[in-house]
Amino acid sequence: MLNKNVVTFIGCDKEYEEAEVVLFGAPFDSTTSYRPGTRFASQAIRNESYGLETYSPYKEKDLEEGKFFDSGDLELPIGDSEKVLDSITERVNIILEDGKIPFMIGGEHLVTLGSIRAIAKKHEEFHMIHFDAHADLREDYLGVTLSHASVLRRCWELVGDNKIHHFGIRSGTKEEFLWAKIHTNMHKFNFDGLRETVSRLKGQKVYVTVDLDVLDPSIFPGTGTPEAGGVSFLELLDALHLVMSNCEIIGCDVNELCPPLDISGTSTAVACKVIREMLIDFIKE
Amino acid sequence: MLNKNVVTFIGCDKEYEEAEVVLFGAPFDSTTSYRPGTRFASQAIRNESYGLETYSPYKEKDLEEGKFFDSGDLELPIGDSEKVLDSITERVNIILEDGKIPFMIGGEHLVTLGSIRAIAKKHEEFHMIHFDAHADLREDYLGVTLSHASVLRRCWELVGDNKIHHFGIRSGTKEEFLWAKIHTNMHKFNFDGLRETVSRLKGQKVYVTVDLDVLDPSIFPGTGTPEAGGVSFLELLDALHLVMSNCEIIGCDVNELCPPLDISGTSTAVACKVIREMLIDFIKE
Amino acid sequence: MLNKNVVTFIGCDKEYEEAEVVLFGAPFDSTTSYRPGTRFASQAIRNESYGLETYSPYKEKDLEEGKFFDSGDLELPIGDSEKVLDSITERVNIILEDGKIPFMIGGEHLVTLGSIRAIAKKHEEFHMIHFDAHADLREDYLGVTLSHASVLRRCWELVGDNKIHHFGIRSGTKEEFLWAKIHTNMHKFNFDGLRETVSRLKGQKVYVTVDLDVLDPSIFPGTGTPEAGGVSFLELLDALHLVMSNCEIIGCDVNELCPPLDISGTSTAVACKVIREMLIDFIKE
Amino acid sequence: MLNKNVVTFIGCDKEYEEAEVVLFGAPFDSTTSYRPGTRFASQAIRNESYGLETYSPYKEKDLEEGKFFDSGDLELPIGDSEKVLDSITERVNIILEDGKIPFMIGGEHLVTLGSIRAIAKKHEEFHMIHFDAHADLREDYLGVTLSHASVLRRCWELVGDNKIHHFGIRSGTKEEFLWAKIHTNMHKFNFDGLRETVSRLKGQKVYVTVDLDVLDPSIFPGTGTPEAGGVSFLELLDALHLVMSNCEIIGCDVNELCPPLDISGTSTAVACKVIREMLIDFIKE
Amino acid sequence: MLNKNVVTFIGCDKEYEEAEVVLFGAPFDSTTSYRPGTRFASQAIRNESYGLETYSPYKEKDLEEGKFFDSGDLELPIGDSEKVLDSITERVNIILEDGKIPFMIGGEHLVTLGSIRAIAKKHEEFHMIHFDAHADLREDYLGVTLSHASVLRRCWELVGDNKIHHFGIRSGTKEEFLWAKIHTNMHKFNFDGLRETVSRLKGQKVYVTVDLDVLDPSIFPGTGTPEAGGVSFLELLDALHLVMSNCEIIGCDVNELCPPLDISGTSTAVACKVIREMLIDFIKE
Amino acid sequence: MLNKNVVTFIGCDKEYEEAEVVLFGAPFDSTTSYRPGTRFASQAIRNESYGLETYSPYKEKDLEEGKFFDSGDLELPIGDSEKVLDSITERVNIILEDGKIPFMIGGEHLVTLGSIRAIAKKHEEFHMIHFDAHADLREDYLGVTLSHASVLRRCWELVGDNKIHHFGIRSGTKEEFLWAKIHTNMHKFNFDGLRETVSRLKGQKVYVTVDLDVLDPSIFPGTGTPEAGGVSFLELLDALHLVMSNCEIIGCDVNELCPPLDISGTSTAVACKVIREMLIDFIKE
Repeated sequence: MLNKNVVTFIGCDKEYEEAEVVLFGAPFDSTTSYRPGTRFASQAIRNESYGLETYSPYKEKDLEEGKFFDSGDLELPIGDSEKVLDSITERVNIILEDGKIPFMIGGEHLVTLGSIRAIAKKHEEFHMIHFDAHADLREDYLGVTLSHASVLRRCWELVGDNKIHHFGIRSGTKEEFLWAKIHTNMHKFNFDGLRETVSRLKGQKVYVTVDLDVLDPSIFPGTGTPEAGGVSFLELLDALHLVMSNCEIIGCDVNELCPPLDISGTSTAVACKVIREMLIDFIKE
Repeated sequence: MLNKNVVTFIGCDKEYEEAEVVLFGAPFDSTTSYRPGTRFASQAIRNESYGLETYSPYKEKDLEEGKFFDSGDLELPIGDSEKVLDSITERVNIILEDGKIPFMIGGEHLVTLGSIRAIAKKHEEFHMIHFDAHADLREDYLGVTLSHASVLRRCWELVGDNKIHHFGIRSGTKEEFLWAKIHTNMHKFNFDGLRETVSRLKGQKVYVTVDLDVLDPSIFPGTGTPEAGGVSFLELLDALHLVMSNCEIIGCDVNELCPPLDISGTSTAVACKVIREMLIDFIKE
Repeated sequence: MLNKNVVTFIGCDKEYEEAEVVLFGAPFDSTTSYRPGTRFASQAIRNESYGLETYSPYKEKDLEEGKFFDSGDLELPIGDSEKVLDSITERVNIILEDGKIPFMIGGEHLVTLGSIRAIAKKHEEFHMIHFDAHADLREDYLGVTLSHASVLRRCWELVGDNKIHHFGIRSGTKEEFLWAKIHTNMHKFNFDGLRETVSRLKGQKVYVTVDLDVLDPSIFPGTGTPEAGGVSFLELLDALHLVMSNCEIIGCDVNELCPPLDISGTSTAVACKVIREMLIDFIKE
Repeated sequence: MLNKNVVTFIGCDKEYEEAEVVLFGAPFDSTTSYRPGTRFASQAIRNESYGLETYSPYKEKDLEEGKFFDSGDLELPIGDSEKVLDSITERVNIILEDGKIPFMIGGEHLVTLGSIRAIAKKHEEFHMIHFDAHADLREDYLGVTLSHASVLRRCWELVGDNKIHHFGIRSGTKEEFLWAKIHTNMHKFNFDGLRETVSRLKGQKVYVTVDLDVLDPSIFPGTGTPEAGGVSFLELLDALHLVMSNCEIIGCDVNELCPPLDISGTSTAVACKVIREMLIDFIKE
Repeated sequence: MLNKNVVTFIGCDKEYEEAEVVLFGAPFDSTTSYRPGTRFASQAIRNESYGLETYSPYKEKDLEEGKFFDSGDLELPIGDSEKVLDSITERVNIILEDGKIPFMIGGEHLVTLGSIRAIAKKHEEFHMIHFDAHADLREDYLGVTLSHASVLRRCWELVGDNKIHHFGIRSGTKEEFLWAKIHTNMHKFNFDGLRETVSRLKGQKVYVTVDLDVLDPSIFPGTGTPEAGGVSFLELLDALHLVMSNCEIIGCDVNELCPPLDISGTSTAVACKVIREMLIDFIKE
Repeated sequence: MLNKNVVTFIGCDKEYEEAEVVLFGAPFDSTTSYRPGTRFASQAIRNESYGLETYSPYKEKDLEEGKFFDSGDLELPIGDSEKVLDSITERVNIILEDGKIPFMIGGEHLVTLGSIRAIAKKHEEFHMIHFDAHADLREDYLGVTLSHASVLRRCWELVGDNKIHHFGIRSGTKEEFLWAKIHTNMHKFNFDGLRETVSRLKGQKVYVTVDLDVLDPSIFPGTGTPEAGGVSFLELLDALHLVMSNCEIIGCDVNELCPPLDISGTSTAVACKVIREMLIDFIKE
């Protein structure tokens, strides 16, 4: 007898009951203001992950040692942002209720709001570490408030002042940068200041949201609004490791890979490796 | 002194006051269920149109003889379909109020609804000729009623039974085909029956909506949901000429070119030529 | 509780026990003499199939009415053709032993040999209908006998004279065409003669092998060795329908889609539709 | 001892002394008004020709039976059209002086003028058969008289009235079509009238110039200014065979493949097959 | 009433009369010795600039604060370099006569000569700062003296010894490097020595010509002759800022983006950001 | 009289008799476990090398000063790894017997084994310097022992313990890294330790094998299994120069460029420059 065709991110094939971290994909890109296509990211990442080894020579651990489950992609009603967010929140609720950690693969960055709504319901107080090239702090974009350009502003409405810590930001309006001075902890261009931030947040609850365009477009060209002057791959790995091994991670997401723009496949490979390294940090000795 | 940089579809550079037909672009693709990117079509079509001659050897007329004005692209609030449709309706209202004919370049097919809302306000009764590979007659798509998969269903709510005449349809659910049997005039696969339809509609008010994926993907690969088994370019030209020279055209649109999928540029060139030939039919001897 | 991520060709999600037709992928392309990449076809076809409707307006049936199961891709030892063929034969053996019909998605055309080895063990006598642009009848290719250029020659060694019926062939060496005159039934360029062949084979056991490059490259550019002058999509549908509704089909395969060459996605969409239409012919009223 | 790396069009590897037809490449595209890149055509055609068989199932002959020599590409001073044309004329002069037939692979269409200058010096009177989508009969293009848009006009200055026979033309200015009515034999859209033309020219000296964009872009997308509504591949083969087997061919060229636009490689494969079939017509029983 | 479709580089929409800096495009690439396509750069840059913010977080200023006008692209007689240069010189003359600063977007690097001819007529003495991977100092290229490979040599004929300061050069013939030792100030590989150069030129008239291939191909792959080993994006920003804020800038140009090679769009985005940052340096507190 | 079309890597056009270094191509990729296409590398590198200067500004020498011969590509029986390796070994044998140094351009990395078999027959003892992102030390890959994933393990069987020195390795299984600790000298991630290794090997016989994916994918995206976190182009140049100017080089190869993934052409240009710089190190003052 033959089995059904199960497809997961490499090494994330444990049973649901025993899993500690649960992946899922949120294939949504309807509010993308420029080049759409991130909806194909989670599928591309799963397929491409088989070009990767499960072993990390950086941390000398193997994905197979972890307890990871990939629950596949949500089927999202493209074209209605509110319904899409509800669908994401519902999935994260289930994962949280089952005592597991949600790990979402976007999609455009707006999907983070769906996840944060569930997180905020469960955890009274938590911080967000936000790696991105863009501030995403607009009040609205041409009158639309549910937009990838406003997602961190919407999250701020849920988490409050001084709970969001941005790093790598190098694009935004003047207003966004001024607003951030009052309400969030903005670090421009790179990871300067991360070590201090992490040592302050040590042991506290942290949600990590990674917009992969924080990386320099030389290493990550496959994204809709590339911003030159970003961080290197090894800098991102170090930063993630710093955060994930020092804080209590209550959820995370990785966003904004746009496979149609990734002709050579290198950006998808980078996304896979970032995810592998983040997952491996969940493995405790 | 130097002038500002005006960019129009080739040969559409008359003054607004004297124009008979007014083009505009509706760069929207948020409800696209599969591969997005049609938002770039109107801009690509304008740029590519300069690879075209203004003269049609088919009809032995020249765009320069016509009275065409290109009013550029709408700035649309990507991510909120209702607001997008309002913005389109508003533009078409202006064009109609000024006694001119609107010619919209999409964008995904949902944009047609914005135009039809304005048309239906001005004209009590009219027909729609619909060239497409897809029926676009779903009640909703995953609960979303404003969707490119439902656009003709939404139009039907405005124009009523037996007013929509589909040609070339070769994809849809069983339900759509059954529903069409009752409410619209469905012609599958090709233009069989068009001559009869046109002779019945002779002199009546007709809105023409062209989803370019009615063409076979061999000649029009640059679209999000290509459906093999379509009509040839010359068949489409003939069909359009038949309609446009025999009916009273009160508006038209051309949709679903997806430039990111059109690497070689041939699909954009096809779109340009379809538009040129449609425009030239507005020139009366 | 969340489920594992099962990925199938659209509409092929019945339980194995009740299935009549069992799909599987053979992601192999090591003997490809020119542009490799067909190894990615089965995965691309599964993913892309969701851009397709399950309903066929041609036959007015729906995939959901059939009993189809997709058993996923074989994990093949790239680089060792003999082992790869063994692996295919083993899968087909299981399917045949369970009383079901194998439907293989290649891969390069050599994979057909793995399937035919299993078929020939079970069925003493049967015919092969072969749609292709290339004869694939070389004795060897630079000394290599297990090659996509020799696959029908290897099959002939198993099925014998006058059992292979080629259609659409428009490329080969002089020797291949001369050899075919003696041992097989060669029809060059198109489907002329198919009606006669099918009426002779009516009710007999037939294995159908479709090299998609039988299609004209205008509609199917995404293949390694495109040969202009091929058949149209509708001609292929008719030919397949003729064969599949008149003969007793004991197995089939569809090969030579090369996704890396299919930038616009149209060739993959064509492959999906060919497979849908072949599957739908298995649904009996 | 090892040999130098000789690269020719497939099957064109006879010694120069015995050759009847001599190929060469003219990698030039400086006057291209739209998308450049044809300069890479001759090299791409040579490389890609190894995906082709030397045997033609259409004519049941083999390139190996002919006497063909490939003399490689000219090194052209990109940026100075007059010098480029001199360089081409010089190469054709040598070939003609050695009693052989020149077969040039462009490049953009202006290269034909370089060849015709040499031909016109040797042959007092001859005809030109011109297959193209574009008339190429402008007096000048923005004041530039040496342009791909004017090349047939420049040739006309050398060969005189009623010596140029165009087929397939479906793009040009009104002026070009009017001018052609007086000075050349213009056949629009397809090969209608070719049989009559050939029977009038039977046995006369004919130079054949093929702009591959005469083909429909569905089968030949890889060209700078694609014009929908063209001829099919088999129609072109028939037309070429008609001309080449009935007239005395004194030279020919094949132009306007643009490899950077031919992502899938099918257009280059088409160009190779057109050249193979033209060459094979030089083989007499 | 509707307006014409005006398209400018983002934030460059002031009235001509008040403008201090006037942009224009020079879409020319006929002498490109390798991969052409830079003619599409100025159009691509305008379109892509809308993916950019007008605010620079590096300099904390906004394009909207400046007085910039975009006068669109020249219509250039492709194929005749001398006429093309005349056309550029004429446009720069107008800008200079109106007391404004010309900012040209190429095109291939030869366009700089057209600009320098106008500059040299107005300013008796000035320096050129030249950022490039290539020396561009050949006497000629295959006998052609008006070539992108010779453009700085032609400029030198107008500005004289020790007036041209090259940085980043990492490709050229031995002769070019030897010649440069006598006539210009050559700095190989990077910006070492720029600070000294700028402090010597402080307050003097300087024309800045940026061949974007001075950037490493990792961040700027979309160019015709990529040369590994280049400078980083942030190094280029710093270098430009150093020059533009310390010298009296009398004109500048940015060249050699080749959009057809920029599949992911990142190189065009880089070009846009370089232009934004250069423009912002014209805004004085 | 016209000559045959000889195509070589730029500047490698000396006569065989006088040559010191002999290049050849090994267009093979049948065991590639992920994205195939390296078979096109040697041809692409030759063609692209004409975009390069023969002069190195880094070493201030010119390829023309060297004695280099390019013997073209092997015709390899794709699909049979053992025969392919024999064919490579035979070519290297000839080169070695003629007292010259072999310089192979792959292809996938397995081709190195063919070369090492010939080298090991001639030289009793020698070292291998191995630059790569991947360890390539698996015992087998799904049971296949002749695989690009096992090639260094197969070489080790010929050269023995402590003769292979890896640098840049950042991907492999846990087992490979453990095995390497015992049998080879493994340096992870970068060139740390190279200076010490070279000083120990000074004057000894060394074979250099470069898998170009040792480079960071930002500068070398055109490869089948890109691994972020690699070395920079200038680091690779320095490392190669260190090795090649201090050891006695008895052979070398450069592998794993995959042209179909190198849309912009930058990776091919990088490969060309690496080869030029390696060749130039063979020129002694």
